[in-house]
Amino acid sequence: MKEFLLNYIQEHAASWKVQPQIIEGDEFQDCILLKFGEPRTAIFAHMDSIGFTVRYQDQLVPIGGPKAQSGYLLVGEDSMGPVECELIENDGDIHYKFPRGIERGTELVFKQDFRESDEYVQSCYMDNRLGVFNALKVAETLENGVIAFTCWEEHGGGSVPYIAKHIYENWGVKQALISDITWVTDGVVHGEGVAISMRDRNIPRRAFVDKIISIARESGIDFQLEVEGAGSSDGRELQVSPYPFDWCFVGAPEDNVHSPDEIVHKHDIATMIAMYDTLMKAL
Amino acid sequence: MKEFLLNYIQEHAASWKVQPQIIEGDEFQDCILLKFGEPRTAIFAHMDSIGFTVRYQDQLVPIGGPKAQSGYLLVGEDSMGPVECELIENDGDIHYKFPRGIERGTELVFKQDFRESDEYVQSCYMDNRLGVFNALKVAETLENGVIAFTCWEEHGGGSVPYIAKHIYENWGVKQALISDITWVTDGVVHGEGVAISMRDRNIPRRAFVDKIISIARESGIDFQLEVEGAGSSDGRELQVSPYPFDWCFVGAPEDNVHSPDEIVHKHDIATMIAMYDTLMKAL
Amino acid sequence: MKEFLLNYIQEHAASWKVQPQIIEGDEFQDCILLKFGEPRTAIFAHMDSIGFTVRYQDQLVPIGGPKAQSGYLLVGEDSMGPVECELIENDGDIHYKFPRGIERGTELVFKQDFRESDEYVQSCYMDNRLGVFNALKVAETLENGVIAFTCWEEHGGGSVPYIAKHIYENWGVKQALISDITWVTDGVVHGEGVAISMRDRNIPRRAFVDKIISIARESGIDFQLEVEGAGSSDGRELQVSPYPFDWCFVGAPEDNVHSPDEIVHKHDIATMIAMYDTLMKAL
Repeated sequence: MKEFLLNYIQEHAASWKVQPQIIEGDEFQDCILLKFGEPRTAIFAHMDSIGFTVRYQDQLVPIGGPKAQSGYLLVGEDSMGPVECELIENDGDIHYKFPRGIERGTELVFKQDFRESDEYVQSCYMDNRLGVFNALKVAETLENGVIAFTCWEEHGGGSVPYIAKHIYENWGVKQALISDITWVTDGVVHGEGVAISMRDRNIPRRAFVDKIISIARESGIDFQLEVEGAGSSDGRELQVSPYPFDWCFVGAPEDNVHSPDEIVHKHDIATMIAMYDTLMKAL
Repeated sequence: MKEFLLNYIQEHAASWKVQPQIIEGDEFQDCILLKFGEPRTAIFAHMDSIGFTVRYQDQLVPIGGPKAQSGYLLVGEDSMGPVECELIENDGDIHYKFPRGIERGTELVFKQDFRESDEYVQSCYMDNRLGVFNALKVAETLENGVIAFTCWEEHGGGSVPYIAKHIYENWGVKQALISDITWVTDGVVHGEGVAISMRDRNIPRRAFVDKIISIARESGIDFQLEVEGAGSSDGRELQVSPYPFDWCFVGAPEDNVHSPDEIVHKHDIATMIAMYDTLMKAL
Repeated sequence: MKEFLLNYIQEHAASWKVQPQIIEGDEFQDCILLKFGEPRTAIFAHMDSIGFTVRYQDQLVPIGGPKAQSGYLLVGEDSMGPVECELIENDGDIHYKFPRGIERGTELVFKQDFRESDEYVQSCYMDNRLGVFNALKVAETLENGVIAFTCWEEHGGGSVPYIAKHIYENWGVKQALISDITWVTDGVVHGEGVAISMRDRNIPRRAFVDKIISIARESGIDFQLEVEGAGSSDGRELQVSPYPFDWCFVGAPEDNVHSPDEIVHKHDIATMIAMYDTLMKAL
């Protein structure tokens, strides 16, 4: 993902309104930071792929919280070559079915089956390739801001703390938007615009969320308000970091969460991009 | 709470023995720090109100861990005006009953019903208005020390890390007392003095706890030793911060925890204040 | 433990290849850091003893996650003198049986019963006295590196964050090996060499783990690859610290985990020491 993104950025940045400083390397592990102009707000988009690690025999253990349903196709590679196998779920235990044994520690991800209609895109990993896509679209016209591509969001965290440290200590940035994909629920539906999350398991500072809602209202862009008691994001690590970050999750909703069939409405993606354009200017 | 406290401090600080430096603002979100003289120890008192956020339809999701019992009265406000509604608990699901819909994301808290007798005070939010009260009483005669009014203690934390960073890096303070309210149990009862907690879910450093117990013994002030395997406090965030904080929870016990009927014995409050006076001098 | 280790180090360091700088004191609580030469990699070995705290009456609450089986012998001391009592487990509740009451807050640990055969060592606290032993053996010939003796690994953490901060900020060290004991499972067995853990509940960065496996393969030293979905270590706190640490758990496996009968094969200890010698040079 890092290589793919660095290539993409190198190919496209020339046509962007502002050329960002690209910050990456050993001190940032597999993460990338883009610094545009004089930033006041950072966009956090995680690059994780949930999936499975091969344990012993034909056993699998999850990476993040993937849905595990018999028949799902998984792909990967070990020293013996490429792997495409079938997931077998058996009373909570997860196994693979493949003609040969797969090496211990091999990582397997959902096989991609990208589907597009007039209204929807559907595939594994809409969460959070779409959050990354959103950030790259916003990058085209962004004048001031940070874009952070992060790791481990789906599995316990670990990169947001040092990124938060860097952008706060070096650039004084302490406002953040979490560019990620949320859930279709009984209160947030397909096609009615990007969701602004007032809370999930974590509760961001009310003053900041209210400010964002007020900017959203003035913008005329479609949006939906989300209120959840569960779920989490890169926002959690900003919240508990030793820096006074304000953060808000702003993202399109998907159905079939964490499965190979994640589906998102195109209007919700378009309004997500438009809302980020607006927020990055106004905040 | 922040405004209320700033007003209170501005009105009363003139009569305190030492005028504290008041540190607040954007870098401290909704928190307040008071610095008295040359501090060696900090008092942490959280300002949280547990309660509920309005989700969709008539659904509520908790803020912190409030007791949820049908018939409790909740109050709040949305753009249509003030709200006073009834909580309905139904097999773990929490709803409100109110003639009109309440706006998504509205925060509701227990309606106050303050009761006082010769021996007891009773109300919602004794946890942790009494911890705040204790800190303000100790402030009257405090010569050297920090008082930190914190946020998010009841809901995952998030302010203690940057406060710990500030007071350690700027003033070298790495001793802390957690001014908070604990539980009446089979080992800690009403009226026998402030509780000194040897551990809860977290285990503070034994050497520091022993020092506090030894000062407490010499003081002659009534106290009770608490030992729990569950429960947590601002101490947890100090413990896991990247600073070598020693901390100890010292607070009066209450019954009817996290309900509108929290009750505390006045002797336990008086000994809490006296113990803090003593500890802040001796530590 | 700290005193014991400081004594051991003072007695033995003179015969080590390189004299380390010994860093300890108030800013490091009960931890010890040894700095050898120009360090690139740190060894983390925790010093915890799991056990029990005396609560009220005859109740016990766990420190860490000890196995609690009726008949286990526990030892400790309170102001009335030494304690040797029997653990009583009753439907999940844990009690002690002793002729007199034991003081509130007294800490009890498993009574040691050290057993040694040609092939095995067996005792309580193989986890993690053997990780400490490994570090001390590696110290004998270590030229460049850090050894950190840490606290609270078994109970929520709290010392690794400030140690990580110190070694990263002062010496630029961001590679870590977790010198700890793991589990015998259906994939990791007694006597087939030290385990290199590709993941547990936490997932370290793949690039670093692959590098370690590649050095291990070239070394010719016996080792086993471990893949787990559960379990944790000091690695977790490095992972979520605001520093870009790469880490990997490398340790001998034991059976009868967290009981008084932890058992480890001597070949797995010998290969653990040899592997650390190799890794500390090659990384």
